[in-house]
Amino acid sequence: MPEQTNRRIVLDARPEGIPQPEHFRRDDQPVPEPGDGEFLLRNHYLSIDPAQRGWVNAAANYSAPVPIGGAMRSLAVGQVTASRHPEVAEGEYLYGWFGWQDYCVAGPDKIIRRVDPEQAPVSAALGILGIGGVAAYLSLTGIGNPQPGETVVVSTAAGSVGSVAGQVAKQLECRAVGITGSDEKVAACTESFGYDAAVNYRTAEDIGATVSAHCPNGVDVFFDNTSGAIADAMVLLMNVGGRIIQCGTASIANWSPTPSAPRRDREMLTRRLRHQGFVIFDHVGQEFDAAVEQLATWIRQGAIEYHEDVESELDRAPAALAGLYNGVNRGKKIVRLI
Amino acid sequence: MPEQTNRRIVLDARPEGIPQPEHFRRDDQPVPEPGDGEFLLRNHYLSIDPAQRGWVNAAANYSAPVPIGGAMRSLAVGQVTASRHPEVAEGEYLYGWFGWQDYCVAGPDKIIRRVDPEQAPVSAALGILGIGGVAAYLSLTGIGNPQPGETVVVSTAAGSVGSVAGQVAKQLECRAVGITGSDEKVAACTESFGYDAAVNYRTAEDIGATVSAHCPNGVDVFFDNTSGAIADAMVLLMNVGGRIIQCGTASIANWSPTPSAPRRDREMLTRRLRHQGFVIFDHVGQEFDAAVEQLATWIRQGAIEYHEDVESELDRAPAALAGLYNGVNRGKKIVRLI
Repeated sequence: MPEQTNRRIVLDARPEGIPQPEHFRRDDQPVPEPGDGEFLLRNHYLSIDPAQRGWVNAAANYSAPVPIGGAMRSLAVGQVTASRHPEVAEGEYLYGWFGWQDYCVAGPDKIIRRVDPEQAPVSAALGILGIGGVAAYLSLTGIGNPQPGETVVVSTAAGSVGSVAGQVAKQLECRAVGITGSDEKVAACTESFGYDAAVNYRTAEDIGATVSAHCPNGVDVFFDNTSGAIADAMVLLMNVGGRIIQCGTASIANWSPTPSAPRRDREMLTRRLRHQGFVIFDHVGQEFDAAVEQLATWIRQGAIEYHEDVESELDRAPAALAGLYNGVNRGKKIVRLI
Repeated sequence: MPEQTNRRIVLDARPEGIPQPEHFRRDDQPVPEPGDGEFLLRNHYLSIDPAQRGWVNAAANYSAPVPIGGAMRSLAVGQVTASRHPEVAEGEYLYGWFGWQDYCVAGPDKIIRRVDPEQAPVSAALGILGIGGVAAYLSLTGIGNPQPGETVVVSTAAGSVGSVAGQVAKQLECRAVGITGSDEKVAACTESFGYDAAVNYRTAEDIGATVSAHCPNGVDVFFDNTSGAIADAMVLLMNVGGRIIQCGTASIANWSPTPSAPRRDREMLTRRLRHQGFVIFDHVGQEFDAAVEQLATWIRQGAIEYHEDVESELDRAPAALAGLYNGVNRGKKIVRLI
């Protein structure tokens, strides 16, 4: 049997800002063999995530930066083709840290979740049933704790995270108002994702007044994926006892030096606000799996929907990543390998 | 029986910044009679509170501004001398909104707490057993939720609120580090209030580095009574999962226009911080009374202490209020009437 090739996209140079295709290169190698306690997995779908930008920077946020010459760190879903670990079975589908490559040898520490292909299409494991969708669900229900009749405002409302937050808010009988960056996405918010209203922050003259007009009872929960001027305006709309979920900071291109902002402490105090950061990797395990079960149930019931934007070439992964930051993506960006 | 006089200090002019004695005047009137459902109370001690500054401004924070010509709004503790309310008994001691005056006619809505003079000296009802001490206790235990061995940093550490926060932290087996504004107060922190360490922010070259040197395991809870540069520095010392309690914003003289600050959203996210505002008036009732019971128990056990700075002339109240903002007060400022 001829030696099989493992196509890999590796980091070639460390970008200063947004990673571009020239920062990556192909570096094919033979398919590796699993050692004791390891398994070999064939990737089916690769994930393209905004957070990957941080993983290639010299100063990493949550984890060591991807080394030059290493396969790009990525979430992926695939099938185990050989196992030398007693608790990982050949044929199993897994979601985890398997990289921009055809094959991955890994240990169980790289698994985020075991995927049941009967529950939903396996590609959904990267998006609505992956870190993005589950972060939206767990942070909204946990930190946001929205009550029926309350108003939930979501930034990046049509994105793979925000669209789940908005739909979960509706399932919880809240009013959901989305903030997004194009008229097309505004339409997706109200037509596909069930928002009661959505606004285009790029064309709004005064984003605070524009959102406020759709929130006659004020804002109880702000699901913040952007930070920046949108967030500053939303703070001023919050009701007493309001909750602000910091799930991302997509609008801030550079944190060094630290940008300045209107000081919020007085609003925090007088409105008794709660502002809390959420990182999904703190919640892997039973909590994550229970969220997947709930979201998958809603998907099967047709109660919530999700969009995927699928590339079919491994080599397109770097361009797809760069494209995430220009605001034109339509749904969760993934690369299909087989 | 000759008609008795009710000495009153009323607001004479609305100050722009810190209220000064010239903004008030004496306006004595006959002692009023309680109507149906009301009671007459003789004030024993008046409270002098930083928040009173806000109550005389045109734009009030939580409540309507004190009217020109009205007795200055104030917390006080006193004894009921006549009652026409079935649930308020003559002879009872009450803590509530009784104003800068000798006598007050009020209904039960003005009562914050019924005071048991056997539990602690009645003057303590204004300080450690009043809104300040109880705010420190409830916000630290509720929002801060400090665990044994964790590090709690307190700003305005020697003040009537901060000194309680620091001592409660020690009772909960935490490391307590205080930030205060003079070497004398630093000494009070470590000698009277049980802090493990305290620093003078006025003389520290780099308040972050100075506090950090006393927090070898980082900061888990920051009890923030100041906002401003001290708070901005503390955010950068917080451990993952840290809690920031916004109990006051004493360092910010003016919120209009909104001052700017380093944007915190990235720290909120990557460190999974929780920042929450606390207003004691949300907690009046059983929660307040239970906190008083715990604090009074610790006082009787000699486990925690409190300092009072007592004026004995009603006419000194306006000057005492102005003096709160120059940083030289030593303990809870009160005015004794009888």
